[in-house]
Amino acid sequence: MMSTRKSRRQASKRIAPLDMSPAAFRSVGRRAVDDTAKFLASMPKGSVTAGSAPKRIRKLLGTGKLPQRGMAPGPLLRATTKLLFDESLFNGHPRFWGYITSSPAPLGMLGDLIASAVNPNVGAWVLSPVASEIEAQTIRWIAELIGYPTTCGGLLVSGGNMANFIGFLAARKAKATWDIRTGGLRSGPAAMTVYVSQETHTWIHKAVDLFGLGLESIRWIPVDADRRMNVKELEQRIAMDRSAGYLPMLVVGTAGTVGVGAVDPLRDIAAVCRRQEVWFHVDGAYGAPAAALPRISDDLLALSEADSLALDPHKWLYSPLEAGCTLVKNPAHLEDAFSFHPEYYNFKVSEEEPALNYYELGMQNSRGFRALKVWLALRMVGKAGFVRMIRDDISLSRAMFDAVRRQPALEPFAQNLSIATFRYLPQDLRGKGEAAAEYVNDLNRELLNRLQTGGEAFISNAVVDGTYLLRACIVNFRTKLADVKSLPELVVRIGSQVDSELRPASLHA
Amino acid sequence: MMSTRKSRRQASKRIAPLDMSPAAFRSVGRRAVDDTAKFLASMPKGSVTAGSAPKRIRKLLGTGKLPQRGMAPGPLLRATTKLLFDESLFNGHPRFWGYITSSPAPLGMLGDLIASAVNPNVGAWVLSPVASEIEAQTIRWIAELIGYPTTCGGLLVSGGNMANFIGFLAARKAKATWDIRTGGLRSGPAAMTVYVSQETHTWIHKAVDLFGLGLESIRWIPVDADRRMNVKELEQRIAMDRSAGYLPMLVVGTAGTVGVGAVDPLRDIAAVCRRQEVWFHVDGAYGAPAAALPRISDDLLALSEADSLALDPHKWLYSPLEAGCTLVKNPAHLEDAFSFHPEYYNFKVSEEEPALNYYELGMQNSRGFRALKVWLALRMVGKAGFVRMIRDDISLSRAMFDAVRRQPALEPFAQNLSIATFRYLPQDLRGKGEAAAEYVNDLNRELLNRLQTGGEAFISNAVVDGTYLLRACIVNFRTKLADVKSLPELVVRIGSQVDSELRPASLHA
Repeated sequence: MMSTRKSRRQASKRIAPLDMSPAAFRSVGRRAVDDTAKFLASMPKGSVTAGSAPKRIRKLLGTGKLPQRGMAPGPLLRATTKLLFDESLFNGHPRFWGYITSSPAPLGMLGDLIASAVNPNVGAWVLSPVASEIEAQTIRWIAELIGYPTTCGGLLVSGGNMANFIGFLAARKAKATWDIRTGGLRSGPAAMTVYVSQETHTWIHKAVDLFGLGLESIRWIPVDADRRMNVKELEQRIAMDRSAGYLPMLVVGTAGTVGVGAVDPLRDIAAVCRRQEVWFHVDGAYGAPAAALPRISDDLLALSEADSLALDPHKWLYSPLEAGCTLVKNPAHLEDAFSFHPEYYNFKVSEEEPALNYYELGMQNSRGFRALKVWLALRMVGKAGFVRMIRDDISLSRAMFDAVRRQPALEPFAQNLSIATFRYLPQDLRGKGEAAAEYVNDLNRELLNRLQTGGEAFISNAVVDGTYLLRACIVNFRTKLADVKSLPELVVRIGSQVDSELRPASLHA
Repeated sequence: MMSTRKSRRQASKRIAPLDMSPAAFRSVGRRAVDDTAKFLASMPKGSVTAGSAPKRIRKLLGTGKLPQRGMAPGPLLRATTKLLFDESLFNGHPRFWGYITSSPAPLGMLGDLIASAVNPNVGAWVLSPVASEIEAQTIRWIAELIGYPTTCGGLLVSGGNMANFIGFLAARKAKATWDIRTGGLRSGPAAMTVYVSQETHTWIHKAVDLFGLGLESIRWIPVDADRRMNVKELEQRIAMDRSAGYLPMLVVGTAGTVGVGAVDPLRDIAAVCRRQEVWFHVDGAYGAPAAALPRISDDLLALSEADSLALDPHKWLYSPLEAGCTLVKNPAHLEDAFSFHPEYYNFKVSEEEPALNYYELGMQNSRGFRALKVWLALRMVGKAGFVRMIRDDISLSRAMFDAVRRQPALEPFAQNLSIATFRYLPQDLRGKGEAAAEYVNDLNRELLNRLQTGGEAFISNAVVDGTYLLRACIVNFRTKLADVKSLPELVVRIGSQVDSELRPASLHA
């Protein structure tokens, strides 16, 4: 290092290379906003994805070393923005219906700018007075929106995995009959077990693996023809496990499965959990916001009975990534599972005015201000606005499913919430059974690959009992009726092309 | 729900309440940028914190229900921005030195705007072609910056806890001698143990609790007078545990402890880990970036020998929250620990051009584009810029410590990296030993409370062997020499005021 004297002389008149003058920030920032506005105008009219190959992106980015010297922020941001706007996949596009990521609300983008500018560390109230209170209000408002008790605890997290993990860990702590924090899992008197349907999202694999129970702790409960958990088998299995010396800990009911969007019979599962004294967690990462709708199914409304609930604002509350959320009926369970008090924290606000320190409620210590974009959206459109957008998404999904039915070369499978599943099935292969099954799967897989890179629309897939399905999930406030009506024709066009190329001789008529 | 026909008619001409026209976005966005520019101009001249009480914030926010109707985005964002700029604590302020959160780089704020606008889901390459490649380049560049092998694996995460958790879980999987994924911790032949110094951050408590080992798995290795791990005791303890039938899994060396900023003897710890075949994880959440400096200590440079390393860009790379990072020497260890392949993912890009799907490397599935703000900063100032800013922070911390020494009422404790620790100690209480110890702790605690709410500067605390210390950590490119020189006088002023109010009669001369 340089001499102390020289270094201090520099530091006294320090102009840090990363700083920007307010004037420079205004100029570069306005340009970024203008470019984004142009992007918002043009993106819906272009391709859903550039479909670029890795080689192309790597060439554009370069594979060089960390630059020794920097460059001016204006040209840097402009070039980067152009690269991103030219070469990305756009989930804000009206015909993006792949996986479950919403079109991001424009105001949420600006919310993220302001969140970064203020940069509150929402781990502790003292470090983020307004932000902590906005997060608390967001939690209450989300609960209110979906009819969950507003006296719940909760916090925002990165997404669905983490939101479900928080519920899982709260359950593990609440149901452990020993001091699990001190002795860990090995010191307990019995192995804990978890109950999920075959349709549960893969977060449950990660949870039992990472949190030490192992895959063997999962009890896969069968589903009915609508892919909903068989509650009778659930109760039998819990009772059986208990008499075999296991410690049943958790049942996961899903409100909107990742496959076909099924909603488990949550009311009946809740009753089983009460009788059996097992924690009831609802994975509503996708579907929970639909509980805001009047006259929605009673099964969905029963998410209010869950001990914990996961819900992703970056799915059906149209938030930019990242925003997941966990609600826990009894707030004490979060503190029980997550709170430690290191002596280097000085975070007590006052006895009279207790304030939340969010680091005590989850896995993170330092936390960003995810709540702002979610809260801004809730305020901008109110409950009525969300009800309308969610209702329209469901209505559009039904319209898409109807259009699928009208295409003879498509086989409809299911329509639940805002998910439609179907597949391309050439008419002459109907009823060919096993002989054609593998080929039809391959055909739909290749169809999907081409559709995904083609850029006209973007959907993804589900696999149900070995059948490969195409799956469109609409959590997209930009989608219009003409968009959903265009999909079946597109699928048929690509499907017949793929079929003409791939069909083996043995399956020709 | 309303009739299908009516609903569809609405959906066909859908104008979603959350959408904004490009013109509206430009106008509201420019205003947000202009307000942020004004904030950047005025904030450094104002208070570090408004010091508001919870009651005040709650009154400003209101405690009402979720609004039924919305409001126009322009006035909403303007009012929210004003509330945040008026009532927050500002870690971008030149005299914010509390805990370890950096001043956020202005370009990073705009990076977060663009990241949200494009909204790539960096869980899968197909969903985020440019963003995934930028994250990969960011990982390589961070490794290069600090001298870690650039062939490493790695990913960005929410912050230090998560970055350390990723290393912990990679270690657990790599060192398990049985199929831990299937059978969990209970099915293993032996209890795993982890080795940390007394100064290790509380993430280790959370890790052993959440990941099922329990607090009893922690071996607290004593430290020397400089708060550095005693390596001889470390090796003895590992050997002892192994002969007692435990499975030593992980040693944590810290590069910049949360208390006094000490760097453990990483070179010697690495040698122990090699001999004992234990995973070597370095918690460099705070201090690792200092390894970029020429002529930094050999102990710090030895972080290159770690099997895994945590480093927070939102600490000493001046990124807005959230940005943590884990590097793992052998990339296969991340996949081993985290990869599952659900059948509803269609994420294979091509055989010839393998592409990273980040959901396979960590705990999240959906992932935001955290990398952009970090990458923009690296490109804007290059390696030379980071070396200069980090070096200046260290230099300023030393200048602060020198100024502390010149104040007779302050007792200097330690200066490491960019952390200075000291306390207020009235001259007439020196040498009073035990009788005064508790009072001096109380005095410094109250001093800190008043300093933190006063808004002239913001520091936090450390506790070393029962002694309550004041602690200033400079990861702040806006801090100048005059700022650090002002702190000792401020501490003495508040300290003598508190002393005059609180001193018990028994301690009067």
